[in-house]
Amino acid sequence: MQSYTKKLNNFVKLLICKMKNMDIQYVIGVDMGGTNTVMGVVDARGTILFRSQIDTSAYETGKDYTKALGAAINELIEQNQLKGKIKGIGMGAPDGNMNDGTIEHAANIPWAKNVVVPIAAMLTQETGLPCKLTNDANAAALGEMAYGSAKGMKDFMVITLGTGLGSGIVAGGQLIVGHDGFAGELGHVRVVRENGRLCGCGRTGCLETYASATGVARTARELLELYPERKSVLRNIIHRPISSKDIFEAAEKGDDLALEIFDFTGKILGEAFADFITFSSPQAIILFGGLAHAEKYLLKPLQEEMDRQILTMYKGKTKIIVSQLNDAEAAILGASALAWE
Amino acid sequence: MQSYTKKLNNFVKLLICKMKNMDIQYVIGVDMGGTNTVMGVVDARGTILFRSQIDTSAYETGKDYTKALGAAINELIEQNQLKGKIKGIGMGAPDGNMNDGTIEHAANIPWAKNVVVPIAAMLTQETGLPCKLTNDANAAALGEMAYGSAKGMKDFMVITLGTGLGSGIVAGGQLIVGHDGFAGELGHVRVVRENGRLCGCGRTGCLETYASATGVARTARELLELYPERKSVLRNIIHRPISSKDIFEAAEKGDDLALEIFDFTGKILGEAFADFITFSSPQAIILFGGLAHAEKYLLKPLQEEMDRQILTMYKGKTKIIVSQLNDAEAAILGASALAWE
Repeated sequence: MQSYTKKLNNFVKLLICKMKNMDIQYVIGVDMGGTNTVMGVVDARGTILFRSQIDTSAYETGKDYTKALGAAINELIEQNQLKGKIKGIGMGAPDGNMNDGTIEHAANIPWAKNVVVPIAAMLTQETGLPCKLTNDANAAALGEMAYGSAKGMKDFMVITLGTGLGSGIVAGGQLIVGHDGFAGELGHVRVVRENGRLCGCGRTGCLETYASATGVARTARELLELYPERKSVLRNIIHRPISSKDIFEAAEKGDDLALEIFDFTGKILGEAFADFITFSSPQAIILFGGLAHAEKYLLKPLQEEMDRQILTMYKGKTKIIVSQLNDAEAAILGASALAWE
Repeated sequence: MQSYTKKLNNFVKLLICKMKNMDIQYVIGVDMGGTNTVMGVVDARGTILFRSQIDTSAYETGKDYTKALGAAINELIEQNQLKGKIKGIGMGAPDGNMNDGTIEHAANIPWAKNVVVPIAAMLTQETGLPCKLTNDANAAALGEMAYGSAKGMKDFMVITLGTGLGSGIVAGGQLIVGHDGFAGELGHVRVVRENGRLCGCGRTGCLETYASATGVARTARELLELYPERKSVLRNIIHRPISSKDIFEAAEKGDDLALEIFDFTGKILGEAFADFITFSSPQAIILFGGLAHAEKYLLKPLQEEMDRQILTMYKGKTKIIVSQLNDAEAAILGASALAWE
């Protein structure tokens, strides 16, 4: 009889153990920007249930920042009674290194300017949760794979069109991170080799000097200067720099020059994508970020130029898709996807 | 007592079974060229123990070819008493598709010109052995990983410098094959966008029109024409086309023009590699094939240009290595590596 009780006890223990595992059904996504760090509790379907945020730049050292971030996460968990239900933390950060879980020489973060900050390990210490970290574009790629347009895809790229141009490449179902954790800097492929635009990286002709929010603004300035006789509503913007939003709004009004700017940008992207495809032959290239919202002006020239430039064996195989993830949520979702891995 | 005998019997059976598994210690590598198909039995250390070959082009259909190939493999196994000791067959073939195990529209193979031949499945039927197939450059990459310079590496590229320029890319320990099995055509990245050389693919400015055996010969012709006053031993070659071997031999004699050809070729490669590295941040790029033997003339300008053009974050991280595998053996070894996978 005692033996039966013992067996029953063990069985109950096993059941409890299984139920505990079933309970682990959330992850935390952290998106670290230059100004704010936003975070959220995410379920397996990609719904952000609870949010919080801290100020990124208000701290003196990486340690102080991580302590504050850890405290915010712990509070988020306790307030919402999620203790024991969190699988882990995924974090997207500028210059985040997935191999080491570090932020390395991030120029725009005061406490990470000239140092390597082992932020994943430190955050695990603060929260007791496993933590993975990567850069923003890689996080976006994982987000698309977990909750977005790349669900079920094993070979695709995400191109983020923001201030710069970032890229996250998935091949064979696996994020390409490289031997040093820094693979996927397609914004710095040199698409114009002669007299290309000077890039923030110190080189010239990089893709992101043309195809990004700042890139289209440069194109606007160049075209306005090159054709002083051409009319454009963009000429009315005098007391501040022209932004990509201005160009989009001008295009919406049918402004010829604005339309030409997007045409030029789409073509540059299409030509570059034709080369990118020779690498990993992706099923899709997903456009993400602010500039991707100009899809109705960008996609046609992009697709046409890509089709014109592409190697015959790849023709018509790679879809160009615009991300369907909500902008405000995508960064947290993308980061959170790391924690399911 | 009977139960004991039974147990002993089972134990002996288990031992035999284990020993049989230990016996499976060879693979077969098949390298299919346009003219000949060579094959060999390879051990885990990369020694080719027994060889055979058949004529690739002597058959009317893919079925006939595969029957002959299967028969040659079966004979190789039987003659050398290797039945039950072969883990599988790996095959490298032009336009070989790793995802499907097919050869697709291979322009230089009479029986595969306008069809898709499911060669891996057919060969398994003929031999009873699992068979995997990929293109030559991918096979070279797997060969380097199994037996060559990339042993222990998880992120590297092999660039084959033959008649054309092929590439095999390994990232995170995994060969990148793409969603259609055709990833890794870096010979067709367009490195010269304005007035580039016409490529066999119908486009212009592809890397392989510059950096390949035929590419350096084109450079020779161009430079000889461009500088009619410059002396060169290459001018003595009149009754036949100049080959890459001619240029190498001229360089060995200190011929200034020949040295300039390699300098130009090295720079083109270095510039291209700086872009390639932004993709997968490899630990090494391994040069393979005929033209790689000109390493003493190619490597310096290549390395210098790569260092000059590369994004700061990658500087000094990616080694340029020349394959140490024996040319005559490398193709069989590379193909055989597929069978260990």
